[in-house]
Amino acid sequence: MAKAKRLCTLLIRLLAFGATLSATIVMATSHETTSVFNLSFKVKYTDTPSFKYFVIANAIGSVYGLLVFFLPAESLLWRLVVALDVVFTMLLTSSISAALAIAYVGKKGNSHAGWLPICGQVPDYCDHVTGALVSGFTGVIIYMGLLLYSIHTILNPLPVKA
Amino acid sequence: MAKAKRLCTLLIRLLAFGATLSATIVMATSHETTSVFNLSFKVKYTDTPSFKYFVIANAIGSVYGLLVFFLPAESLLWRLVVALDVVFTMLLTSSISAALAIAYVGKKGNSHAGWLPICGQVPDYCDHVTGALVSGFTGVIIYMGLLLYSIHTILNPLPVKA
Repeated sequence: MAKAKRLCTLLIRLLAFGATLSATIVMATSHETTSVFNLSFKVKYTDTPSFKYFVIANAIGSVYGLLVFFLPAESLLWRLVVALDVVFTMLLTSSISAALAIAYVGKKGNSHAGWLPICGQVPDYCDHVTGALVSGFTGVIIYMGLLLYSIHTILNPLPVKA
Repeated sequence: MAKAKRLCTLLIRLLAFGATLSATIVMATSHETTSVFNLSFKVKYTDTPSFKYFVIANAIGSVYGLLVFFLPAESLLWRLVVALDVVFTMLLTSSISAALAIAYVGKKGNSHAGWLPICGQVPDYCDHVTGALVSGFTGVIIYMGLLLYSIHTILNPLPVKA
C-alpha cells in the first residue's frame, strides 16, 4: 500500500517535471522574425524580463523535480522536500503570474498607458508563449496539489479504518 | 512556553495582516490627474487588470488574516490553517508578481514592444504603486516565513534537549 502510494506520488512528480521542463523549452525557443514597412525585426523571449524570469524559474523547478527522483525512499531528506516544495511552488507561481501579466498586455494592450497589443504582428510568437504559459500553469497546479496532499497527510492524525 | 509561542505567532500574523491591509488601501487610493497638451486625464489602479487583481488578492488576504485572530486556541481548525496559509500565500505571491511585472514596464517601458514608460508623466501615482508593492511584498515574506516555520514545527520529530 505504501509502495503503491509512493509510486503514485513519483508518477505525479514526473508529470510536474514534464510540465515545467516543457514550459522552459517552449518559452526558450519562442522567437519570430517579422517585417513592418520592409524593416525586419526579431522578437524573442529575452526581450521581456518577465519571460526571462519565467524560463529561469521553470529551469530551476525542473532541476529540482529531477533531483527528487534520485532521493532514496528511506531518506530523511523527504521531510525537507515538503518545505522545498513550498519554496519552489512559490517560485513557479510568481514566474507564471509575472509572465501572464505581460502576455496579457501583449495580447490586449493597455489603452490607458498607450501600450499597443503586439500579437497581431507576431502571432506565432504569441502562440508559442501561450503554450509555455499553459504548460507552466499545469506544473504549478500539480505542485500545489502535491503540497496540499502532503500537508493533509502530515496533519491528519486520525487513523482511518480499512 | 506554549503561550508565549502562541502570542509571538499572533503578533507576526498581526504584522502580516497590517502589511496586506495597507497594500490594499495604498493601491486602492492610488490615482493622479495629469495634463498633456491641455488634455487632462486621470490614471488610477483600475486602469490595469494586474493592479485590480493585486487589490482583490490583498483584500482577501486581509480578511483571512483577520479571521484567524478569532480562532480559539484549542480549535481543531488550526490544523486547517497551515493548508489555508499555503493557498493564501500563493494568492498573494501571484498578485504581487503580476503587479510587479506591470509596474516594471510602467517604470522602464519595453522598447522591443514599443511600450513607453509612463512614470515620467505620473510620478505620484508611481510612488503610490511602489509603496503598495513594498507593503504587499512584506506581507508575502511574513506569510512565507510563518508557513516554513509551521512545516518545520510539524515535521521535526526529534525532541531537542534543553
